[in-house]
Amino acid sequence: MPILRHRTIQLAHGSGGKLTHELITRLFADRFSNPALDRLDDQAVIDCGGIRLAFSTDSYVVDPIFFPGGNIGELAVNGTINDICMCGARPVALSAAFILEEGLAVADLERIVDSMQRAAARAGVDIVTGDTKVVNRGKGDKLFINTAGIGIVDHPYDISARRLEADDRIVISGRIANHGMAVLSKREGLAFESPIESDTAALNRLTSALVSGLGASLHAMRDPTRGGVAAVLNEFAAASGVGIVLEESALPIAPAVAGACELLGLDPLYVANEGVLIAVVAAEKAELAVTVLRGHELGRRAALIGRVRAKPPGLVAMRTLLGTERIVDMPVGEQLPRIC
Amino acid sequence: MPILRHRTIQLAHGSGGKLTHELITRLFADRFSNPALDRLDDQAVIDCGGIRLAFSTDSYVVDPIFFPGGNIGELAVNGTINDICMCGARPVALSAAFILEEGLAVADLERIVDSMQRAAARAGVDIVTGDTKVVNRGKGDKLFINTAGIGIVDHPYDISARRLEADDRIVISGRIANHGMAVLSKREGLAFESPIESDTAALNRLTSALVSGLGASLHAMRDPTRGGVAAVLNEFAAASGVGIVLEESALPIAPAVAGACELLGLDPLYVANEGVLIAVVAAEKAELAVTVLRGHELGRRAALIGRVRAKPPGLVAMRTLLGTERIVDMPVGEQLPRIC
Repeated sequence: MPILRHRTIQLAHGSGGKLTHELITRLFADRFSNPALDRLDDQAVIDCGGIRLAFSTDSYVVDPIFFPGGNIGELAVNGTINDICMCGARPVALSAAFILEEGLAVADLERIVDSMQRAAARAGVDIVTGDTKVVNRGKGDKLFINTAGIGIVDHPYDISARRLEADDRIVISGRIANHGMAVLSKREGLAFESPIESDTAALNRLTSALVSGLGASLHAMRDPTRGGVAAVLNEFAAASGVGIVLEESALPIAPAVAGACELLGLDPLYVANEGVLIAVVAAEKAELAVTVLRGHELGRRAALIGRVRAKPPGLVAMRTLLGTERIVDMPVGEQLPRIC
Repeated sequence: MPILRHRTIQLAHGSGGKLTHELITRLFADRFSNPALDRLDDQAVIDCGGIRLAFSTDSYVVDPIFFPGGNIGELAVNGTINDICMCGARPVALSAAFILEEGLAVADLERIVDSMQRAAARAGVDIVTGDTKVVNRGKGDKLFINTAGIGIVDHPYDISARRLEADDRIVISGRIANHGMAVLSKREGLAFESPIESDTAALNRLTSALVSGLGASLHAMRDPTRGGVAAVLNEFAAASGVGIVLEESALPIAPAVAGACELLGLDPLYVANEGVLIAVVAAEKAELAVTVLRGHELGRRAALIGRVRAKPPGLVAMRTLLGTERIVDMPVGEQLPRIC
């Protein structure tokens, strides 16, 4: 039996949905298997000379490389910082590796590198090592950037997708779907009444405040990038064997973004975010979590958006504005390719 | 004044020669400046929770992805392990990030991932975290792989390009130019009498033996990849403000490789290696260094190939078979694009 249902790589293998999951679990995780990798979190946590180290990597292939609210460089810095800090680690250092297409304007590269430096400085993390490769014209697409990062886990808690419990609350730090809609509008040359900007931002100050403020009551954190809120909550529900129910009326979304999604037939729950986190917390600390987040500029629109329930295990649902419940499934195909 | 002499990215910006150096120093290093990065070694060494951590990254864009003696995957594993261990660090964990082109055969990806796992196991290092992106057909080239790695520096020595002293000896662990000529012969469809295979291999056991055996007498180590032996020795000479003189008669090179280089008009000193290291050691420990290396399968052709002299600073020369001296300059242009 072939290990994947397709014999060649499809765009949807990179979408963060079911085909990505199939590729990762059946091809990569099975072969590379080891305790750190097998957890399939956005970062590995390993023991290194007696300290707990978080280690993560992401390649960025977003198209276009400049979009409203940011560019591929700051996305690469913020994205990897976010992957590191979602286990509650304190980011320490980043690497940056560039694959440049022959013919890229040096001026564009300068702008991107400048914004990477500003993003790293804002987050308080140094870019300490790097690499540059050049590929022939037509064998790449302007530039791809990989960032890897390391951080120190200096708290004793297990913050993980496997720690959801019935009656936990789902908290989100800000408005959803901005990044995906900003990239899409630029790519497709769409103009909306109000400009839609990417939310790209490093969230390490928010995660650090949540860890300090909530301690062991903070069960899980993740940033809903590819596949959006729907993908993260489905992964949480599957990993912990619980159900999740969202309240549509509580979801924070800018009117312009909601309008653009409706116009294009996109469900904002599946659209990528780059400066938003989802935290799952014990019910009695839910209000505190919202208060902690609102104490930061990036979290001032934080909201409680749902709760965990024992059954049905693995299922994510949403109570709609009409009072009915609908299933929020794991994304299958490719809603928005090359979004990050 | 523009920061680079070209307004667009050239293939030679990725060759490991003068244009790469210009791009890295004037564009990246200047903006990202911090103590760890400013050393411009192949790895950063940072203090992390009280331990010294080596951190490195490399993207691999070699074309073709399968070549005699290896493929892009094992190259990516071995190459980053080598970058980490050249400061004498013990590699602990790797990340692997894939940029796949739509349409890549899943069977090819499987073979590559299998060989990555074997390479990692041989070196005793786990791949603990990863990422997968897919780009549209024609926007990439089958696959690019980035690996980043971390290691622990658990010795007290400063092994660095800045530590060369007059009368030090230059030691090489094996025959040169195999990787570059293997890739080139496959790419160009050339057939030589004896097949030429890449030397791709992880060198962490060799570096560890040198650190244990030589201690403070081990001044510098580096693996001569892009730009070959010539680029590494020029970097060493410039960083330490010393001269270096090689003995052509002492350079280990397979007859088939030497013949292929001659046929194609390539200087083997500029051709990439992926399983060879250069060590600079105090004169009185030079024989010991060779003995230590020859104790390992990968080092059994180790040889003394030259020495450091006080003057002229920054200049690398070679005493030829005819007894004359010729300058071995830093490579300028693109001898072999996409070699790693």
